[in-house]
Amino acid sequence: MRPDPQFVAAKPQENAIAINDSIAIICGGGAIPGAVAEAVMRRGRRPVMFAVKGWADPQIVGRYAHHWVALGQAGRFFRLARAERCREAILIGTLVRPPLAQIRLDWKAIGLMPRIVRAFAGGDDRLLSGIAKLLEEDDLRIVGVKDVAPDIIVPEGMLGRYQPSRDDRADIARALNLIATLGPFDVGQAAVVANNHVLAVEAAEGTDNMLARIADLRRQGRVSTPERTGVLVKAPKPKQDRRFDLPTIGPQTVANVVNAGLAGIAVAAGDTMMADPAEVIAAADRAEVFVVGVAEGKAQ
Amino acid sequence: MRPDPQFVAAKPQENAIAINDSIAIICGGGAIPGAVAEAVMRRGRRPVMFAVKGWADPQIVGRYAHHWVALGQAGRFFRLARAERCREAILIGTLVRPPLAQIRLDWKAIGLMPRIVRAFAGGDDRLLSGIAKLLEEDDLRIVGVKDVAPDIIVPEGMLGRYQPSRDDRADIARALNLIATLGPFDVGQAAVVANNHVLAVEAAEGTDNMLARIADLRRQGRVSTPERTGVLVKAPKPKQDRRFDLPTIGPQTVANVVNAGLAGIAVAAGDTMMADPAEVIAAADRAEVFVVGVAEGKAQ
Repeated sequence: MRPDPQFVAAKPQENAIAINDSIAIICGGGAIPGAVAEAVMRRGRRPVMFAVKGWADPQIVGRYAHHWVALGQAGRFFRLARAERCREAILIGTLVRPPLAQIRLDWKAIGLMPRIVRAFAGGDDRLLSGIAKLLEEDDLRIVGVKDVAPDIIVPEGMLGRYQPSRDDRADIARALNLIATLGPFDVGQAAVVANNHVLAVEAAEGTDNMLARIADLRRQGRVSTPERTGVLVKAPKPKQDRRFDLPTIGPQTVANVVNAGLAGIAVAAGDTMMADPAEVIAAADRAEVFVVGVAEGKAQ
Repeated sequence: MRPDPQFVAAKPQENAIAINDSIAIICGGGAIPGAVAEAVMRRGRRPVMFAVKGWADPQIVGRYAHHWVALGQAGRFFRLARAERCREAILIGTLVRPPLAQIRLDWKAIGLMPRIVRAFAGGDDRLLSGIAKLLEEDDLRIVGVKDVAPDIIVPEGMLGRYQPSRDDRADIARALNLIATLGPFDVGQAAVVANNHVLAVEAAEGTDNMLARIADLRRQGRVSTPERTGVLVKAPKPKQDRRFDLPTIGPQTVANVVNAGLAGIAVAAGDTMMADPAEVIAAADRAEVFVVGVAEGKAQ
């Protein structure tokens, strides 16, 4: 059997890392951790799921090598990651701030506590960056989705058959501008703008709840823009560490956008994850809504 | 009977206007139009309610001289306001953008249409300022609550027995800063911040819905800050015309804040209306939450 020609030109040391190394996938909730694991395997690497109790989906993590860890079991995580020969780790999936009762501290975590508390006092950005810094001290490199699973990142341009109108493009620009402006407050990876009117700004509730709210307001006659007007826009906060917490869309997002009576979805190209690209595009085409990846700084 | 000494010093012409003139109260929904009418009468003036069909509360407007008008009946409104000798008008109460089907245009309104459409294309601020400009061309002066009913405006300082902690004050400052930052987007007269974390930003849904959302998220375990942490903050948008659409609180706001597990309410002193001050304060004291009027620029 001949070696894959793609790898022949690479230096042997790089090959060894790229093909043989396991990668620790620290899994929060939602479908994205599974999409990342699949993308990692397509690139010839071995995913090891570290499923966070209370958040990760057992159905998803069960398909791969996996360990369950409670939040706070830092010692257990490092021991297992070393045993599994993981030299890189990725934090992925939803993990909203947990009630303190769900946290199980082991000795390692207790030692790290003062710094974790400091990280918690900031917004989500600082929390994640703080945790990453702690992990990296243990010789584990924290990588982002773009490094290990670039094929689930939304590219620039139209994803389906439908495209935004001129008015939609103005709404997209306004929403991107709003999200950028909110950056210092560590809030708002998403907003809904319709005919230049900001209908919703996302904070702790998440995108699905925000879209359900628009659907409710519309039923109550409190949204006066006609059906099929307005855009859901998702983009990372301007200064966030792009290794974590990228905005995400999936087939459910399309269904919710249709239910909310919007015209389409625009996301930051290169910085947004898509859980099931083929199904997102098929659902959008069926419902005649657009899905577009917008290059940052090129909104209009 | 001796004349009220307060008025003796005033010029006769000012007296005549202050005491005898009727004031047109163009009434949207909620309890505030009634509170304004009461405050107007306490100052010796006569309120004439112009109740907007579909929005104004018949129970409230029925207590005063009143006429029902549909949105778009500009000619009817001007004719009646002239017959009632109103030289000033105030726009008050909730009036979210109406579905087009509810609008009944008369000839006067059709003549004004091009400019109304232009006003509609902006945010709520421009819509209200645009309508005010049209009204003023017909020799009707548009006044604000502060001009005619200053006793329903929240003053600076603590309103009840409880006061914000140091952490609450930091949350208040962050929320005021957030609302100011959102100004250019004509959105967000309210936000909820808890332990430096922005839980919600108000857009089209209104304050009651926003607070219900926090209560829901808390029940679902998605708000990790302890009970009695976090502040509802309301303040006008920085550039808004202070004659219109001032933020409002009432007894229901206190009930919703308690239900959302927050510590209190902070509003912009001098720029926020209070529907039923005595009941707001009694409800806040009973629930042990604070209500504070914060001078703008003095948040910390």
